[in-house]
Amino acid sequence: MAKFRPSTAEIVVVGNEVLNGEVLDTNSNWLAKRLYSSGLHLKRVTAVRDNLREISAAIRESLRRGTEWIITTGGLGPTDDDMTLQGVSLATRRKTTLNPEALEMLRERYARLYEMGVVRERELTPARLKMAMLPKGARALRNRVGSAPGSALKYGRSWVISLPGVPSEMRDIYENEVEPLILSHAKRVHRRVDGLIVSGVPESTLAPVLSAVSRKFRSVYIKSHPKGIEAGRSIVEVMVHAEGRNEEEVERLVGTVLQELHDRVKGLMPDHIERLEVKGGS
Amino acid sequence: MAKFRPSTAEIVVVGNEVLNGEVLDTNSNWLAKRLYSSGLHLKRVTAVRDNLREISAAIRESLRRGTEWIITTGGLGPTDDDMTLQGVSLATRRKTTLNPEALEMLRERYARLYEMGVVRERELTPARLKMAMLPKGARALRNRVGSAPGSALKYGRSWVISLPGVPSEMRDIYENEVEPLILSHAKRVHRRVDGLIVSGVPESTLAPVLSAVSRKFRSVYIKSHPKGIEAGRSIVEVMVHAEGRNEEEVERLVGTVLQELHDRVKGLMPDHIERLEVKGGS
Repeated sequence: MAKFRPSTAEIVVVGNEVLNGEVLDTNSNWLAKRLYSSGLHLKRVTAVRDNLREISAAIRESLRRGTEWIITTGGLGPTDDDMTLQGVSLATRRKTTLNPEALEMLRERYARLYEMGVVRERELTPARLKMAMLPKGARALRNRVGSAPGSALKYGRSWVISLPGVPSEMRDIYENEVEPLILSHAKRVHRRVDGLIVSGVPESTLAPVLSAVSRKFRSVYIKSHPKGIEAGRSIVEVMVHAEGRNEEEVERLVGTVLQELHDRVKGLMPDHIERLEVKGGS
Repeated sequence: MAKFRPSTAEIVVVGNEVLNGEVLDTNSNWLAKRLYSSGLHLKRVTAVRDNLREISAAIRESLRRGTEWIITTGGLGPTDDDMTLQGVSLATRRKTTLNPEALEMLRERYARLYEMGVVRERELTPARLKMAMLPKGARALRNRVGSAPGSALKYGRSWVISLPGVPSEMRDIYENEVEPLILSHAKRVHRRVDGLIVSGVPESTLAPVLSAVSRKFRSVYIKSHPKGIEAGRSIVEVMVHAEGRNEEEVERLVGTVLQELHDRVKGLMPDHIERLEVKGGS
């Protein structure tokens, strides 16, 4: 079948706390899973510091690579070191302006926090107004969990989506605002992943078999993951990844490849071969 | 004090399993902590796929930024899709050649595995020999946990260090082979991080105080992390980061800044301020 190429994506993680090792970034893994199961092609994840030049450089490089969905996390808050949207502005040469939708979201938010007694004044102070400054032309994305709205900017063939770094806020906005946008606009593939767990044959002995099967089925991707040695026996996971436009075709292909792998690996006299459960989404 | 600049570092994570969301990359967080406590400046983390062009592009871009310590993880194994060292070769225009030290390490390793009954033949098959193919001029780094040796290549003012993706192997090689190299060759700063936990004042109200203190003490970095709302009260962590050549000076500076922050935040009438324990290393 002719190769059908899904839309490309990149993630740009912003935050000194990640690069100082204070915080383990789990946002990009969560997003990677969602993008994978939505059928997009995630090319790269880049983590940079809270530094305007670094942020805008990472976004500009991603735009130059022609990436269609660029998702940033972190750096949307009220403090001076939250400068992701300025970075987006710099990279896309759009000024930041007070976004009316974002302003309204913040008004509602602080009115509610005031009523709840969480804040002592309900006005939008300069620090709060800062969170309504979005790149010109961006759409504000409602944050149901925290204060800072997200931002979605169309730039040529690309979308630059900016989400907060707090995981619960990032997930909320992604699920309610970003994923629907992706599902309706992106080119998506069907995917299927299946695998074998082989015990008693080390990866280096499996390698020529995997090469041979890969050469025979060029449209699938076969990858082995050594899982260590248990009771004197190497444990290796072998995963078969296939993707394409047509769901049935993809399923059939994975089945065929897995059968061939199973037969050939059996010839290496392993102690045990086990089928692994499906990992991919549709 | 005149600004003393530590050596710069970047991490390049290689592996489809990371970008498909199958595996949460914890290697870069572990390395970030170690680099931080060794006093280096980690500028960027990039994760790319098992694709020769992508890998070499990421390394080449990092070299162009003048990064002094480039550490890659993943893609050193025996299978065809392990191609990190070919990526290093391509980026540095050094051929890969059979490295005698790496060859000897692999000979010893497979002789031991053979005696243990883990492998059925002790010879170095082509797949095993592949792991001894290092960029010309690289030093092989002994892997005490798994098979694939690491690689350390000096390239101009930069070092390109390649480590396996299996966390236990990556850590072993880093601790025994890479960290000693960094400690003896890199320019390192002393660091100190201290903080406050403020409850009852939202981040947007703290923001102007943090700005004012940041402007007064330009050599420190002050960052707030909202921790959510508990019992109707905002919880915000405020961290003060300082670094410099002289340990005592850095400690004194953090103490002064923390005191000033404490006094000013008190003026905002929080419910509670608490000192946070030191997080940084020396």
